[in-house]
Amino acid sequence: MRDFLPADKARRERVLAVIRERYRAHGFDEIETPVMEEYARLHAGVGGDNEKLAYNILRRGLDAEAIRAAADDPAQLTDLGLRYDLTVPLARFFASHRGELPSVFHAIQIAPVWRAERPQKGRYRQFMQCDIDIIGDASARAEAELAVATLDTLDALGLEGGGIRINDRRLLDWMLEHFGFAPDTRPGVLITIDKLDKIGPDGVAAELRERGADVAAVDAFQAFLRRPQTLEFRPFGEGQVRKALPEGAPDDVVAHLVGIGEAVAAARPGGDGPGGVPLVFDPFLVRGMGYYTGTIFELSHPSVSYSLGGGGRYDGMIGRFLGQDVPAVGFSIGFERIVDLVEQGVDTAAESVVLVHDKDVPIAELAAHKARLIAGGARVRLETRTKNLRGLLERATADGYTAFATVSAGQNELETKPLV
Amino acid sequence: MRDFLPADKARRERVLAVIRERYRAHGFDEIETPVMEEYARLHAGVGGDNEKLAYNILRRGLDAEAIRAAADDPAQLTDLGLRYDLTVPLARFFASHRGELPSVFHAIQIAPVWRAERPQKGRYRQFMQCDIDIIGDASARAEAELAVATLDTLDALGLEGGGIRINDRRLLDWMLEHFGFAPDTRPGVLITIDKLDKIGPDGVAAELRERGADVAAVDAFQAFLRRPQTLEFRPFGEGQVRKALPEGAPDDVVAHLVGIGEAVAAARPGGDGPGGVPLVFDPFLVRGMGYYTGTIFELSHPSVSYSLGGGGRYDGMIGRFLGQDVPAVGFSIGFERIVDLVEQGVDTAAESVVLVHDKDVPIAELAAHKARLIAGGARVRLETRTKNLRGLLERATADGYTAFATVSAGQNELETKPLV
Repeated sequence: MRDFLPADKARRERVLAVIRERYRAHGFDEIETPVMEEYARLHAGVGGDNEKLAYNILRRGLDAEAIRAAADDPAQLTDLGLRYDLTVPLARFFASHRGELPSVFHAIQIAPVWRAERPQKGRYRQFMQCDIDIIGDASARAEAELAVATLDTLDALGLEGGGIRINDRRLLDWMLEHFGFAPDTRPGVLITIDKLDKIGPDGVAAELRERGADVAAVDAFQAFLRRPQTLEFRPFGEGQVRKALPEGAPDDVVAHLVGIGEAVAAARPGGDGPGGVPLVFDPFLVRGMGYYTGTIFELSHPSVSYSLGGGGRYDGMIGRFLGQDVPAVGFSIGFERIVDLVEQGVDTAAESVVLVHDKDVPIAELAAHKARLIAGGARVRLETRTKNLRGLLERATADGYTAFATVSAGQNELETKPLV
Repeated sequence: MRDFLPADKARRERVLAVIRERYRAHGFDEIETPVMEEYARLHAGVGGDNEKLAYNILRRGLDAEAIRAAADDPAQLTDLGLRYDLTVPLARFFASHRGELPSVFHAIQIAPVWRAERPQKGRYRQFMQCDIDIIGDASARAEAELAVATLDTLDALGLEGGGIRINDRRLLDWMLEHFGFAPDTRPGVLITIDKLDKIGPDGVAAELRERGADVAAVDAFQAFLRRPQTLEFRPFGEGQVRKALPEGAPDDVVAHLVGIGEAVAAARPGGDGPGGVPLVFDPFLVRGMGYYTGTIFELSHPSVSYSLGGGGRYDGMIGRFLGQDVPAVGFSIGFERIVDLVEQGVDTAAESVVLVHDKDVPIAELAAHKARLIAGGARVRLETRTKNLRGLLERATADGYTAFATVSAGQNELETKPLV
């Protein structure tokens, strides 16, 4: 977990303000839930591996007897936990407030989550998530709105040229069946396919054989993977989608994907992705979370090799809390990764001035000078003059101040000079 | 703990943006610390009663033996806790990062804190705190900067006319000595004095007698309290301060208070408080926290009877973490109370449009219409047309949308009409 010093915190807040503003422009509405949720809800099986990483809250008022009784069932020691994602809280929120929300609800959630990970580079135990979700729309309109809002937000942050890889879990399921992988081996097969970028078609085939997958299925799949075009990004259109898949892929799923592609192309003509469309179909995109039921996304940018976010459709999850299935699809951008890519940017204040005053200037005079400059739209810092004036001004420049003035006792007018 | 629906969340974010912007204009810099701090640090005695209300995190990886061993010492079950205020984290932050910060550090912290309070009206287990603190400045310049920034922020929120009651713990201590209260009775005496507004001078005297305070001291104090002018707010100036105190009050403390008053008056000429100055000296202001060592503040507004915030000087606390005394003073505004007082305010988007489309409009056409309007600066929501168009538009109006257009398949131009 990290402290954020002023320069970092200011950059984070500026990036968050842009994200918030863009998502709102696209018709999404921000909500907020408490950082704690009930333990049972956080451990209902929808959080996957993240459930094991949850921080749990010690129950208040436990006596010695209750503690001893919990020795063999530590879950008795806790009743609440910190959220490890924003999806479980959203599902609970929607179930609680459905009557107060529009029938198709466009949610923004911008908030920290916590995971008790082993400390390692680029992984934090507290980090921000920025999610948009659409609940109540089963059509491709929902995926298109998420994709366009996400790419527009990247643009607004100065990260033009972003692209989204897209696939559908139902196509993966169909493909595994098509090649003849036995149902009980399929989750393992997906884990291996997820490594395709890293280990290539033959590496995937070798690992599948090691895992004991059906030999005939692996052979057929390997031949398909080796087809030269399948590892290239493909712009949209039904022809391209069909060409990237074995013959006989389900029509409704293909139509859903093509619908998303056409809508994104219409909203962003001349996009920067391959073929002018910032959305590419990747039939081997897997994404880890077990709760995805349809479309899955991954956000990329030419400046980095890793993903900047992702998401997908999870039509089953809300039903767990509501007792009634509701379609839902979400897209999460990796705030911690994005904030590192965004340029410092300009401070919003028109002018920021350091007032370097002699030690004997009456406080009331300082207060009046400061108030006048602030009233004129400036940001103002008071500094008592030290022998090392140069060091003091360098420090102020590093902190984003753009001008300074010196102040002596009884001085009426200030002469502001630029800091260089 | 509460969920925030879109309208509430939008208002909260607007208020936070104003607070952030104003505090920054006054030369404060925002920082952020993790929500969790070490258990030992949260329970070092500086948090007062709030320490008992802390939510503690269950230690990860406890086995049955470790749990049984903790039966008589439940603190062994936890190693981290959620912060119950922003002052303890700030002291820890400053001790960790002192070398990276200006010698006089103006900090903003805007963040949630948690207290396991019994649920009651207006008290929440998770709530936002908005603190500004100045570390490293022992002079009255610091108090004046805090007071002016706070009043300016209230103005910017449309809450003009705020006032600050001010006192100094050293004057309270001197006064109790002056009237002859024995040292061991003084903490109790302060608790009773804090009720002066509610129970009046004779009520205070009666309670002090019940508490067993020295009879001669109570008599002398009661006579002083009964002086007609002591319960009125008093504008600043040394004469007024002296008049409100028994004779012989310490010169340095009086001069510090008068310095604050003069500076605030200079920064805010024509203030709305009594006598034109929004700062009034109240020699019986106490404030609960035990860590205050000098100036104490309380923020009031004519529209409500309760306090909207407060703060004070806590010169001893940073030293606990740093091993070296550093002067510090802070002011916290009660965000949860203030947000309820602030008018809804206007949405920032220039125009917000609901596109009500027939069910058969291709998604690509919808995406293109939406993208064009957003590019023109609007906020846009798509809605599928239902039989109850009127209900749909009423809902959109309630959600802050100002215009709508209907969309049919193949339509090229949209005609936007105002929502009423």
